[in-house]
Amino acid sequence: MEDKNPYRENFPLLKENPVIYLDSAATAQKPSCVLQAERDFYEHSYANPMRGFYALSMEATKRLEEARDEVRRFINAPSSDEIIFTRNTTESLNLVAYSYGLSRLKAGDEILVSIMEHHSNLLPWQMAAEKTGAVLRFLECEADGRITQERLEAAFTDRTRLVAVAHVSNVLGCENPIRQIAAMARERGAVVVVDAAQSAPHMPIDVQESGVDFLAFSGHKLMGPMGIGVLYGRRELLEEMPPFLTGGEMIDSVTRTGAVFAPVPHKFEAGTVNAAGAWGLMEAIRYLKRVGFDEVHRRELALTTMALEGLKQIPHVHVLGSERPEEHCGILTFTIDGVHPHDVSAILDADGIAVRAGHHCAQPLFEYLKVNSAARASIYFYNTREEIEAFLKSTAGIRRKMGYGE
Amino acid sequence: MEDKNPYRENFPLLKENPVIYLDSAATAQKPSCVLQAERDFYEHSYANPMRGFYALSMEATKRLEEARDEVRRFINAPSSDEIIFTRNTTESLNLVAYSYGLSRLKAGDEILVSIMEHHSNLLPWQMAAEKTGAVLRFLECEADGRITQERLEAAFTDRTRLVAVAHVSNVLGCENPIRQIAAMARERGAVVVVDAAQSAPHMPIDVQESGVDFLAFSGHKLMGPMGIGVLYGRRELLEEMPPFLTGGEMIDSVTRTGAVFAPVPHKFEAGTVNAAGAWGLMEAIRYLKRVGFDEVHRRELALTTMALEGLKQIPHVHVLGSERPEEHCGILTFTIDGVHPHDVSAILDADGIAVRAGHHCAQPLFEYLKVNSAARASIYFYNTREEIEAFLKSTAGIRRKMGYGE
Repeated sequence: MEDKNPYRENFPLLKENPVIYLDSAATAQKPSCVLQAERDFYEHSYANPMRGFYALSMEATKRLEEARDEVRRFINAPSSDEIIFTRNTTESLNLVAYSYGLSRLKAGDEILVSIMEHHSNLLPWQMAAEKTGAVLRFLECEADGRITQERLEAAFTDRTRLVAVAHVSNVLGCENPIRQIAAMARERGAVVVVDAAQSAPHMPIDVQESGVDFLAFSGHKLMGPMGIGVLYGRRELLEEMPPFLTGGEMIDSVTRTGAVFAPVPHKFEAGTVNAAGAWGLMEAIRYLKRVGFDEVHRRELALTTMALEGLKQIPHVHVLGSERPEEHCGILTFTIDGVHPHDVSAILDADGIAVRAGHHCAQPLFEYLKVNSAARASIYFYNTREEIEAFLKSTAGIRRKMGYGE
Repeated sequence: MEDKNPYRENFPLLKENPVIYLDSAATAQKPSCVLQAERDFYEHSYANPMRGFYALSMEATKRLEEARDEVRRFINAPSSDEIIFTRNTTESLNLVAYSYGLSRLKAGDEILVSIMEHHSNLLPWQMAAEKTGAVLRFLECEADGRITQERLEAAFTDRTRLVAVAHVSNVLGCENPIRQIAAMARERGAVVVVDAAQSAPHMPIDVQESGVDFLAFSGHKLMGPMGIGVLYGRRELLEEMPPFLTGGEMIDSVTRTGAVFAPVPHKFEAGTVNAAGAWGLMEAIRYLKRVGFDEVHRRELALTTMALEGLKQIPHVHVLGSERPEEHCGILTFTIDGVHPHDVSAILDADGIAVRAGHHCAQPLFEYLKVNSAARASIYFYNTREEIEAFLKSTAGIRRKMGYGE
């Protein structure tokens, strides 16, 4: 145990369960401070926020807005009015597609979607294209995931009105040049919608510096509770957009035939907001800040380097994406010749190792890479060298277990 | 303390906080078993459900489906495939409006909405009417909230295609005749969308016996966690409906230009479902079953009777809705001559009593009743006689505190 990980103590499941959890790109485990924060909200400040004029409800409202401001700082948004609480990244992206997409896109406009998008940042744009007559075009990448200047210049046209792109690919782990894409989009009057589900847990995000228009992420991948997500949107855009979900607490007034909607962000938060989830997310962000992104990065990079170098040593194993561990954001998606990824996952599971197998909600990328499906090990700072060693050892034995020689 | 309430012990906030909580119609307090269940999910079975082939993820999936089946039993749905997990009632109703409404309603079709709907079951239909050319008509009620046979016959026409109605009004507390409405709708080939947010915590629901087509409720009003809600839909309808939110885990396959969607219920559950919330909701339902609806009803009725009779004794106080306590579902919405409801709420708050004030997200009803706004005390089985006494005593002193004589 030369590399004692001091953070594991904070994660009840990892402390008591012998699982080697390498599926943090699907969802992250929770530190006890997050679970305690959520519970504390229910036990000490619970009421429906925004709705009451009594002390308990005002306290709940105060906590909700404190959480909103923590999220604002986390991504350096200019105003907490630009932070909308949703359920998850998927809902955030659908909100943009329904509200901005359907009201602003017209027949012949082009929506540019990267080929490596998660289905959550692709299907809503297929829907928007179908309903508006806009054309869906794809921004392609090199085999290692790089989106080159040439690819960008070939993909943008005068008709590009919206670009949907992942900050970090959930399959390749590569970081996409969102700042450059945002600059090219702005020149052409297009907006950029960033899926930051995979980046937010791993690296600082600055929506002002990157110049993106919309950015979405989930609480649960960031060690926060399930059922809470975030959409950042530039105020000018949010203010012009029609509401998406309608109902309580997002209106100023309602008559039989119409309504005057509340200002942002409440216009987009119909019904009871998951304030306890937001409070838990706030604590997750604070925990992440206490650990620090430098420390997160240092640990992840060390483990990713070890895992990638180890996988390269195993015959018949192929890792998708870059050769360089620093271009993986802890995500190692791989195939083994002659072994179905479901079998890879099942054999690793028998050794107590949790990895994901399948198309990872990114089928067009797999088609593009001419790979049917793959296994994915994803690393977070709470993993250890011992876990990576066990993963490599188990992976090295998979082909033998499947009956192949040597 | 002649009426010791044995359930208060179960509610951490009520045990430690001296608040007299009379806002359960906005959201219910949580028993510790629910908070513990949610925490237990995170500490012992946490992984992304539906996505992994490893033990932890399969356990999470199993728990999610166990919760779904508990919800199915709770409302006696034929199949758990008809139970969709959403964030809250508002999202459930919007799902129906966007998916069913926009795909099935046509210009000239009539949407019948009761005048007492919460904005959540009105605004989505205003949106659907505007986008499809369907006509929004109102089902009106007597001053006490009763929807008579005459009103029903006057409101239904040959063009009625959809009826949106609350099971229980969040303002008047009256129970609407959803079985009769469903029967009349069925005769005319219309579907019925029931907002059961206010009924589900208080009375048994049987979607088969009542014959409704869609029914929505929230976990948080049922003592479950925030961020989890339910939509029941009849299978034949759900199967024909297009998806609403799109993204991960609601597809069979995706290409660059289109997708084949998964079967129900997954078609409607894009992105990571709040499985921990569903697990907490399951525990809330089980807790409610352990208490039993008979006991809930007995306690609520006793307290409501006491409160209603007491309010009637206070000069210048007017309770909206029925004269009969059994027709209030624990909800007592009232005005005090010459005192703004916000002041009513503030004065009660100064005595540690939490009630809500405003238009209660039902502005058309207030306009119909010619009342600007009102205060609402809402009772749940965890309240006590002492609390109602304190509420009545404080209410009786409000006009004096506002400077009126005697």
